[in-house]
Amino acid sequence: MIETVRWRDGVVRMIDQTRLPEEEHILSLTDVPAVHEAIRSLRVRGAPAIGIAAAYGVVLAASNASPAGAREAAAAAIQTLKTARPTAVNLFWALDRMADRLARVPAGQGVAEPLRAEADRILEEDLAMSRAMGAHGAALLPSPCRLMTHCNTGGLATGGLGTALGVVYEAARLGKRPTVIANETRPLLQGGRLTAWELLKAGIPVRVSPDGAAAWALKTQSIDAVLIGSDRIAANGDVANKIGSYAVALGARAAGVPFYVVAPGTTIDPDCPSGADIPIEERAPEEVTHVRETAVAPEGADAYNPAFDVTPAELVSAIITEQGVFRPPFEGLAAAAAAKHAIGS
Amino acid sequence: MIETVRWRDGVVRMIDQTRLPEEEHILSLTDVPAVHEAIRSLRVRGAPAIGIAAAYGVVLAASNASPAGAREAAAAAIQTLKTARPTAVNLFWALDRMADRLARVPAGQGVAEPLRAEADRILEEDLAMSRAMGAHGAALLPSPCRLMTHCNTGGLATGGLGTALGVVYEAARLGKRPTVIANETRPLLQGGRLTAWELLKAGIPVRVSPDGAAAWALKTQSIDAVLIGSDRIAANGDVANKIGSYAVALGARAAGVPFYVVAPGTTIDPDCPSGADIPIEERAPEEVTHVRETAVAPEGADAYNPAFDVTPAELVSAIITEQGVFRPPFEGLAAAAAAKHAIGS
Repeated sequence: MIETVRWRDGVVRMIDQTRLPEEEHILSLTDVPAVHEAIRSLRVRGAPAIGIAAAYGVVLAASNASPAGAREAAAAAIQTLKTARPTAVNLFWALDRMADRLARVPAGQGVAEPLRAEADRILEEDLAMSRAMGAHGAALLPSPCRLMTHCNTGGLATGGLGTALGVVYEAARLGKRPTVIANETRPLLQGGRLTAWELLKAGIPVRVSPDGAAAWALKTQSIDAVLIGSDRIAANGDVANKIGSYAVALGARAAGVPFYVVAPGTTIDPDCPSGADIPIEERAPEEVTHVRETAVAPEGADAYNPAFDVTPAELVSAIITEQGVFRPPFEGLAAAAAAKHAIGS
Repeated sequence: MIETVRWRDGVVRMIDQTRLPEEEHILSLTDVPAVHEAIRSLRVRGAPAIGIAAAYGVVLAASNASPAGAREAAAAAIQTLKTARPTAVNLFWALDRMADRLARVPAGQGVAEPLRAEADRILEEDLAMSRAMGAHGAALLPSPCRLMTHCNTGGLATGGLGTALGVVYEAARLGKRPTVIANETRPLLQGGRLTAWELLKAGIPVRVSPDGAAAWALKTQSIDAVLIGSDRIAANGDVANKIGSYAVALGARAAGVPFYVVAPGTTIDPDCPSGADIPIEERAPEEVTHVRETAVAPEGADAYNPAFDVTPAELVSAIITEQGVFRPPFEGLAAAAAAKHAIGS
């Protein structure tokens, strides 16, 4: 398990992901502006990890204030932290939950301890969800197993285990001896930089692969399964995920390798009938024309840089959530999402 | 046209490809060791371009020597230059041709001029072959046309026009207004660095794309054709080419986009029945774990780094050589290659 974000001795400890993989630098954040900056500058990234960091930021505010000012400080922190990433749904969700908990502390009682307990619960629930997905997913894998991943869907993006990578960790825990080909995932290289770092740290053999080599690896490297995450799943089972996922799915289908999507039930959007309804963000060309500070295209070159693609449901072997394994034609999917949303609300 | 390697005023002028795309630096090479170093250090790359550079290196040796010593100097240069790249078939082919020409100069006559004429012919024949491939290929394209390329198959790899990229140039010359998505082609980024540079220079609109985005681009960007080169074509039409080509072929097939392979007839190996007989070189992990000097994977990470993959013939819409357009099931292919080899030998 990666200790992505933790509360330790009154401070928020966090791995600075902008310095990976060269350096494992642990930040000790002691006030709300520091947490705000860490979220804004992508020192912590991945929806669940951002939510957890923000929740502990609220705890910091309450802990640093006088007993009389703690409630007001926590409320102010919630408003401040909501501005750290404008479109991070999980950030708002975690902060709303902290606000609810704050509102339920009776007047005159200390708020720091109840808020810390709530932040701990957000972290623990995330880990429990990862464990559930891990168990459902690992049950599908042979022993030993050769796996392929795309992007980073691991501990660094979550409370410490992950979605698709959580399945790899659980397979290792069960003695299934996983080995992994991690697609590097251009343009931002989350696979090469973050997934490979996590797996090396966990002692799980990993080879980083150029994204273009994925289909050939699936054809020639005896891979047992592809495990990827998702940003949004349509009601029909179409899966939006990091750019390159669709290409991996085509390679998996051509090679007869199962293609598993691992994501919490909250990722399923019952109001989105199919992938055609998912807008695809196009990002700045500089992400493609540069690797960190190194130019890898001529000055003035334009780039094609969609953030996501959509894998059609017919290429998806199964969708694994904390609730279980959904198989094509994914008839129960929207209902599962709806049930989850009802419980969550 | 790119002036990749040219004889100008008694020196070999060459674009230093190791300094692209940041800088267009023209080398002026005045002796054989300089040409040897340029080939060895990949300042010139691509089989035809290497052959042309070596041929002019022999001319340099003869020109720099006294009339009495020119023949011996040229013969020594041929031996020296053969050691510049150990497995470059085209290098040996060009130097053997120079040795043949040298042997046919009557005793007592000057060798520098006949050798220079032979090197010029090697260059001109390469350009003529590119023009023939370009004409056959461009005839298949609509106007305007949206194209995808992989790796660099252009003027920088050849005498100045190219194979697959030669088709793009010819389409532009015919007024078909091509626009290009150039896959960057990790690990060595020949697409982003070299193809994009060539197309910008030629005034042809280009967008560099991460390799993982190619399949999604083929599905969503109304692309009319994929144009790629080849390192070796089996008798059944299976095509070995830069890693990532197979993934592009899968994406093209899924999107219904024609997948054209453009290569000289000498690329077809009639003694190789199918792609299964083509060995795939696996290269150093550092090419994947680093981009130039920047680490993009954690220290100690291993990599999967095949140099090539094989696209099965059933995914190939046509193979375009200087002789014409070959369509599945590619029955005439081996015969065409055999004829070519007979002429060449």
